[in-house]
Amino acid sequence: MRIITLLTDYGLEDNFVGVMKGVILGINPNVRIVDITHCVKPQDIIGAGFLLKGSYRFFPEGTIHLVVVDPGVGSKRNAIVVETSDYFFIGPDNGVLSLALDSVRKVVRITNERYFLRPVSSTFHGRDIFAPVAGYLSKGISVDRFGKETKRCKDLNIPKAKKDGDRIIGQVVYIDHFGNLITNIDKKVFNRFVCKKIRFKGTYINKISINYRQTKKRSPLAIFGSFGNLEISIREGNAKDYFCAGVGDVVSVSI
Amino acid sequence: MRIITLLTDYGLEDNFVGVMKGVILGINPNVRIVDITHCVKPQDIIGAGFLLKGSYRFFPEGTIHLVVVDPGVGSKRNAIVVETSDYFFIGPDNGVLSLALDSVRKVVRITNERYFLRPVSSTFHGRDIFAPVAGYLSKGISVDRFGKETKRCKDLNIPKAKKDGDRIIGQVVYIDHFGNLITNIDKKVFNRFVCKKIRFKGTYINKISINYRQTKKRSPLAIFGSFGNLEISIREGNAKDYFCAGVGDVVSVSI
Amino acid sequence: MRIITLLTDYGLEDNFVGVMKGVILGINPNVRIVDITHCVKPQDIIGAGFLLKGSYRFFPEGTIHLVVVDPGVGSKRNAIVVETSDYFFIGPDNGVLSLALDSVRKVVRITNERYFLRPVSSTFHGRDIFAPVAGYLSKGISVDRFGKETKRCKDLNIPKAKKDGDRIIGQVVYIDHFGNLITNIDKKVFNRFVCKKIRFKGTYINKISINYRQTKKRSPLAIFGSFGNLEISIREGNAKDYFCAGVGDVVSVSI
Repeated sequence: MRIITLLTDYGLEDNFVGVMKGVILGINPNVRIVDITHCVKPQDIIGAGFLLKGSYRFFPEGTIHLVVVDPGVGSKRNAIVVETSDYFFIGPDNGVLSLALDSVRKVVRITNERYFLRPVSSTFHGRDIFAPVAGYLSKGISVDRFGKETKRCKDLNIPKAKKDGDRIIGQVVYIDHFGNLITNIDKKVFNRFVCKKIRFKGTYINKISINYRQTKKRSPLAIFGSFGNLEISIREGNAKDYFCAGVGDVVSVSI
Repeated sequence: MRIITLLTDYGLEDNFVGVMKGVILGINPNVRIVDITHCVKPQDIIGAGFLLKGSYRFFPEGTIHLVVVDPGVGSKRNAIVVETSDYFFIGPDNGVLSLALDSVRKVVRITNERYFLRPVSSTFHGRDIFAPVAGYLSKGISVDRFGKETKRCKDLNIPKAKKDGDRIIGQVVYIDHFGNLITNIDKKVFNRFVCKKIRFKGTYINKISINYRQTKKRSPLAIFGSFGNLEISIREGNAKDYFCAGVGDVVSVSI
Repeated sequence: MRIITLLTDYGLEDNFVGVMKGVILGINPNVRIVDITHCVKPQDIIGAGFLLKGSYRFFPEGTIHLVVVDPGVGSKRNAIVVETSDYFFIGPDNGVLSLALDSVRKVVRITNERYFLRPVSSTFHGRDIFAPVAGYLSKGISVDRFGKETKRCKDLNIPKAKKDGDRIIGQVVYIDHFGNLITNIDKKVFNRFVCKKIRFKGTYINKISINYRQTKKRSPLAIFGSFGNLEISIREGNAKDYFCAGVGDVVSVSI
């Protein structure tokens, strides 16, 4: 049974997600639907792109990842379906898919109205375009059928960590449910240098912990978390609250 | 595989929804369960009725829609199962199902304790009555088996938009997750007149937009949204916050 | 199709739960996954244990209940799988499973890395250890394969209601989504005595209600709720807000 994952900013209070599932199951009753999350901050393309990057490869080959975080719904932005060596991705062409696109085979602009739910509303393409396209794709319809191939799709503007003299300068790019601050400093960059200490909002952290128990309760620590990036955390606490931290706050590593 | 949808005010913090699913799957392991939402405001029958209206027809024929928003649980209110030409509906007889009941074939009061989980608690009929009845119904048990047929079920008291001289007077009946204000003015009523302008809380909106891009950022717009009703929105913003709006606020359309 | 239930404090904003499901389905595509809840307060072992106690027996025999509320992740705490006469339980050995463990057949410490997702991170054992073990268990792998049998697993420190002269002294141990205050006074203890009245935060309640309608609107009532324990509620209201109540608040029953 093919899997379709859903990642949206639709929230859980309304019927948006349930309706998308109804549309998909009306087209392919034999597909399995898995929610990644629907609680992306409204219109937060970077947050969604990051969550997709941390999720897609944990699903079986052939999984269809559908992402609807779409501030441009109803405008001229394109909708795309992307086939990579292992997965399919469907979403608006606003960069939200880009962090997950390894080994791209084909990018197709979705234009074939034969696969839409008509009439197409101007506000709910999740229901009228994305869900039905995912449903048909899961039935084995080839990506070529949804529209014409294109060579380019948009990238996401995520700031990159930089080396500046004897420091790596990064920033917080995502904050999880536990208040952990995920930075844009990934393990590959980090491992090229010897880390002396980490500075965040005036606080120095002197080592990289292997687990949360390596520091005192309620104290800050730096750790490579489940995304593979450097995170600032508080043992048995909430780093977001502790530091009054937000996305964009600077993290500096002395090397 | 038959589908059962769930629409409740049980929230997601507790185990209520999971337990209902356990009961259903214990009766019919081969049913597929889809959440519409469980975040209806506690005991908000109108909100739930509206969400059901906007959801039920996007599911395949034969789907069983189970709604538990039930301030009268444990009192003498009836529980009903309704068969329409395309769907089944199960819930308390408090009007919550009424907006979705097109082409009713049969309404049955649920009284046959053979299909209940016993002992029936006085507080959790979702688990003890509604979930098992949905489970048995999904196995093909006829609606007649659950109790006696009745001719009437309760309607929901949703205020209707009215024509008053050269204006249509409506009101906000639901507010979605994005802060869009959904009114009780539907497209059929609206299209019978020429709309001059829309007034909401002292602000005038001069046209109906086709998509969110037809106004400036952070500005109000009026649009027919995915429910088929007139909505007041803010481009890339939140109309609920912008207007300090609530359910019941008046919308007036000059015609 | 075997069922795996999930009960965590991972929340719904991140991708944690979706990723666990991807890992499980990659191992066993033919398992059914049901969420109990993911909104346990971060690291609230008692709350999770209570929710599990109120949930597990509503699922079919053979169901695998996976609980990840794990403040000790990455430390030396053990991970265990427990086989009882009817179910399987997987989780950290911190007491969170203990309230559900009736008729234990076997407790095994999970150590066999063959069934882990490697490399095992220090922060996300839900993905790297618990989800894959649940996946393999659902395929019929025997519990013995995951590690060595042990005789003991930790109990949860839930305060017990006590008889003190002519009173039963209990306390609030869990507060549900509707603001109902669930106490540690269960029906078995209660039924051994004649209840005169119940005192909570200076308010006296003179009887046990059978349903919510047996008191005036917005008034307090005492009722045996769906957990089988004495609950303090407000008819059509929220007892948590009404009483400014919290977990640990004392309830006293005159007998």
